[in-house]
Amino acid sequence: MFQTFDVTARPDQGPPRLAALRAELTALGLDGMIVPRADAHQGEYVAARDARLAWLTGFTGSAGFCVALTDIAGVFVDGRYRTQVKAQVAADFTPVPWPDIRLHDWLKDKLPAGGKVGFDPWLHTIQEIEMTRAALEGTGIQLVPLDGNPVDRIWTDRPAPPSAPVRAHPLEFAGESAADKRARLAAVVQAAGHRAAALTLPDSIMWLLNIRGSDVEHNPVAQGFAILHDNGDVDLFMAPEKLDGLGDHLGAGVTVHDPDAFLEAVGALPGPVRLDRGSAPWLLADRLGDRAAMGEDPCVMPKAVKNKAEIAGAAAAHLRDGAAMVELLAWLDAQAPGTTSEIDVVKKLELCRRQDNALQEISFDTISGSGPNGAIMHYRVTEETDRTLQEGELLVLDSGGQYLDGTTDITRTIAIGAPPREAAEAFTRVLQGMIAMSRLIWPKGLAGRDIEAIGRMPLWLAGQDFNHGLGHGVGAYMSVHEGPQRLSRVSTVPLEPGMILSNEPGYYREGAFGIRIENLLVVEPAPDLPTADPEREMLTWMTLTYVPIDRRLIVVDMLTRAERGWLDTYHADVARLIGPRVGDQARLWLDAATQPL
Amino acid sequence: MFQTFDVTARPDQGPPRLAALRAELTALGLDGMIVPRADAHQGEYVAARDARLAWLTGFTGSAGFCVALTDIAGVFVDGRYRTQVKAQVAADFTPVPWPDIRLHDWLKDKLPAGGKVGFDPWLHTIQEIEMTRAALEGTGIQLVPLDGNPVDRIWTDRPAPPSAPVRAHPLEFAGESAADKRARLAAVVQAAGHRAAALTLPDSIMWLLNIRGSDVEHNPVAQGFAILHDNGDVDLFMAPEKLDGLGDHLGAGVTVHDPDAFLEAVGALPGPVRLDRGSAPWLLADRLGDRAAMGEDPCVMPKAVKNKAEIAGAAAAHLRDGAAMVELLAWLDAQAPGTTSEIDVVKKLELCRRQDNALQEISFDTISGSGPNGAIMHYRVTEETDRTLQEGELLVLDSGGQYLDGTTDITRTIAIGAPPREAAEAFTRVLQGMIAMSRLIWPKGLAGRDIEAIGRMPLWLAGQDFNHGLGHGVGAYMSVHEGPQRLSRVSTVPLEPGMILSNEPGYYREGAFGIRIENLLVVEPAPDLPTADPEREMLTWMTLTYVPIDRRLIVVDMLTRAERGWLDTYHADVARLIGPRVGDQARLWLDAATQPL
Repeated sequence: MFQTFDVTARPDQGPPRLAALRAELTALGLDGMIVPRADAHQGEYVAARDARLAWLTGFTGSAGFCVALTDIAGVFVDGRYRTQVKAQVAADFTPVPWPDIRLHDWLKDKLPAGGKVGFDPWLHTIQEIEMTRAALEGTGIQLVPLDGNPVDRIWTDRPAPPSAPVRAHPLEFAGESAADKRARLAAVVQAAGHRAAALTLPDSIMWLLNIRGSDVEHNPVAQGFAILHDNGDVDLFMAPEKLDGLGDHLGAGVTVHDPDAFLEAVGALPGPVRLDRGSAPWLLADRLGDRAAMGEDPCVMPKAVKNKAEIAGAAAAHLRDGAAMVELLAWLDAQAPGTTSEIDVVKKLELCRRQDNALQEISFDTISGSGPNGAIMHYRVTEETDRTLQEGELLVLDSGGQYLDGTTDITRTIAIGAPPREAAEAFTRVLQGMIAMSRLIWPKGLAGRDIEAIGRMPLWLAGQDFNHGLGHGVGAYMSVHEGPQRLSRVSTVPLEPGMILSNEPGYYREGAFGIRIENLLVVEPAPDLPTADPEREMLTWMTLTYVPIDRRLIVVDMLTRAERGWLDTYHADVARLIGPRVGDQARLWLDAATQPL
Repeated sequence: MFQTFDVTARPDQGPPRLAALRAELTALGLDGMIVPRADAHQGEYVAARDARLAWLTGFTGSAGFCVALTDIAGVFVDGRYRTQVKAQVAADFTPVPWPDIRLHDWLKDKLPAGGKVGFDPWLHTIQEIEMTRAALEGTGIQLVPLDGNPVDRIWTDRPAPPSAPVRAHPLEFAGESAADKRARLAAVVQAAGHRAAALTLPDSIMWLLNIRGSDVEHNPVAQGFAILHDNGDVDLFMAPEKLDGLGDHLGAGVTVHDPDAFLEAVGALPGPVRLDRGSAPWLLADRLGDRAAMGEDPCVMPKAVKNKAEIAGAAAAHLRDGAAMVELLAWLDAQAPGTTSEIDVVKKLELCRRQDNALQEISFDTISGSGPNGAIMHYRVTEETDRTLQEGELLVLDSGGQYLDGTTDITRTIAIGAPPREAAEAFTRVLQGMIAMSRLIWPKGLAGRDIEAIGRMPLWLAGQDFNHGLGHGVGAYMSVHEGPQRLSRVSTVPLEPGMILSNEPGYYREGAFGIRIENLLVVEPAPDLPTADPEREMLTWMTLTYVPIDRRLIVVDMLTRAERGWLDTYHADVARLIGPRVGDQARLWLDAATQPL
């Protein structure tokens, strides 16, 4: 099993650790310290060694930070984690709703002028420190970079750095050789007048060098740093033992160094050196001084725009993954209400995905939330929270697989027995939003922010909404959450053909039920319509995910003809594409599940 | 008539004026000069005296600028005016597509390093000059503020400053006394740590002091400047003869000065003095130096959020205006195709609006465009372009009135005889977008950019779109185009209850036909729906405009039940609200025009 069901929160461990940290801070003459969830690579997941926030506070969410002052320790968490944090931290910690309450405002409130707050300059981005410092201007409160992390000093049994072997990612799946990528990006760096770019995001390094690792759970990445020079050469800072036998694959232009040599190597570069303000550690900018040139990580956009091989791979991975999902759904429907638990579903789903031996990992911990657990957006089932699926409940099942040819992410909401009318109506609205986005055609140049409303409008008209983005970018055998493309109010990056995004509206009634429907989509040029304005460049989606949507949850009368037409066509496609890939029993189930409404 | 139909473009007058200007510039040691459309008040319309761009080049559009260099004179115009500019300027002028080609790029291309370009520091905003200078950094090209405008020196018969009398705007319509407004805004200025705010937008001054003027066509504003002090006192810089008899209305806190004293008065203020970077003349920032504090004109947001009296006034004005429109439409339908011209329609419409003696002005030159003229988005009919309405054509009729209680703006597209199927289908899509936006409910906090797609989606799905925003803010007996609220991709100002906006999707087939449907809407809290999430604050629209939408142009089969339901309800409301306000003949027509689909 890639997934465990242990209870990871241990609230009682926090207070003694907090006390030890405070002693360290007092010895350093500090009034406090920021302990972020992030590591130096700013990914969504961190290695066990870097899970400082969870170690200190007990809070295991994927974003947030603790600010430990002498008399209060705030745990800043966003809307997804407001409930979870309360269950995971002891009374010595104070949950702070973030970003509603911003760090600088909280510090102003809690500290006197002249207060000194330490931070580990590897763990915070340039932008984070610059913005907080700017907001603190005039208050006399200082953010002080630390030499060494006090948490690491008191964490005596801290795990070793991950050391999983790195593998070559074949050209067949990557679609472009690493040498070609290095040359292409070197030209970008050169054109911007930069001599080199410092790369600190593992995804960027994996993509650039066509390699994959497994240092971090659910993400096929290896931890490391890199410097891309303006001639296309790369210095790779990664534990050499992880790269055993990869010399030929990396090629002559790539030189391997010990990770500890990265900071000094960056510091020794002639300027200008490109740093990504939003992801590079603040320490790099500090070390480079006026040799630092701010600019986006040059891998980010080329990685987001998938090539033909990556899109074909994603499509293939989704058919394989769709077959596993259909096997699971057919099995689930055969279980009587009251006999199956959330964990049973997770285990069975992983078995279905493993069946053809192509699964490398799951792309995140499966969310299997029934009844009220379905309303917890980022629910992770544990032995303690596990529930048996009951008649009249909804199950939210959000999961994905990592395959060599692609990364999947799919959510289906399943009726256990006959659903309540209120839930079916809400499900139908969510489906209408999901269909509206799937059908959309839009003019090139628009960003997620410009079109996200389309997927929410059916809920809005009923006075309803949901507190997460409509969709996120997805990698190609890479992170299941990948930027910069997003279907979100905060995303102003124009959508480009080749970008993969999720389309996942939802609805959550706290204490009662949750609903989410998610397909992955690829941006592509719109088809030539007879009515189309000839001069306009329009874009649309190609669907990747083919798995039935539960017809028992649809209030058919609420749908327009166009919506019914879309769903019937989609279901016919599911039957055609997935039918030949599943067993006899699942195929019978699939035939019934994909009948026209 | 408030509207004339003269041909205003005289391309032949441009070249000798350009030659005279070049002689002036050479004498000043300059390589060129920017001549903008704008005056010191940055409004959409300018007084005849300030129409320097039109005088020099012949181009009469409402935005743009000329850059006269020694060997080339570029006329920079946006997408709305690409066709018009070609017809209006002589060959000595070169139309430049703007902002596709930006000023600094053009200057870099046309001028050597060390080139000097003059500008009138009253006519350009702080932001304009700062951004262009920043973009020119390193090129050696300089923007040089001029002492006196060379265009004014060669314009020997330049009109005198407008001197129309200013009138008090009654509390009944304003809803808040000027003294209360001054006190409310002084608190805002004070809270920001500013000692005073310099006001240069006539709308702001009119709103703040509850006065109206008529210095600029179609806009009930008087030209002037003001300083709002942090104690609520106002120094008003406006020709005293325009303010005859207004002493009591203005009150003790308002002191009148000659407009020429404004610059010196601002320069003498102790800092910090608030200037609006986007609207204040660059000269003010230059004069104040480090006493200048950048911040939005404090009147802008309070003016945009209408109070109860202003909303009630707008509703009343729209019923009056709707009756005039219905009289016009009834009359128009009685004319046989081939008998009526675009100008006939404009004249008749103004007559209908004047009928009850409440009309103060039209709110802009009526756009009456038939057939191919309908595809010109900002078409102004002249004796030269006038066309007779023909069988099978569409007429786009976009117009509005200025009333003491409100400003209207309405567009209807009318079928002359039987419309072509293609036009009816496009009309139906435009209508679907207009209905979708009218029905929208959305969570508080969203801006125009976040919801504009809703009004475009039906066109997008057919590969169609239109090249203007979905809607603009509208004033309360003030400018028909009022910021900062907009339904546009460029607007990130959250919509607030009380804001009035237009909802006007369109479709334009060059050389063939145009379509636009426009209602004005007010933002208001959404009604309590039984399905609504209790914790969410949702907003919606209240419709102001009640005039039938041409049923002959609707392809009924394309509409959903919800869309048909909205339109039938709207038409029933039109019949109920407008029916009692029109004559017998118009009422008969209205009854037929508002039947359910």
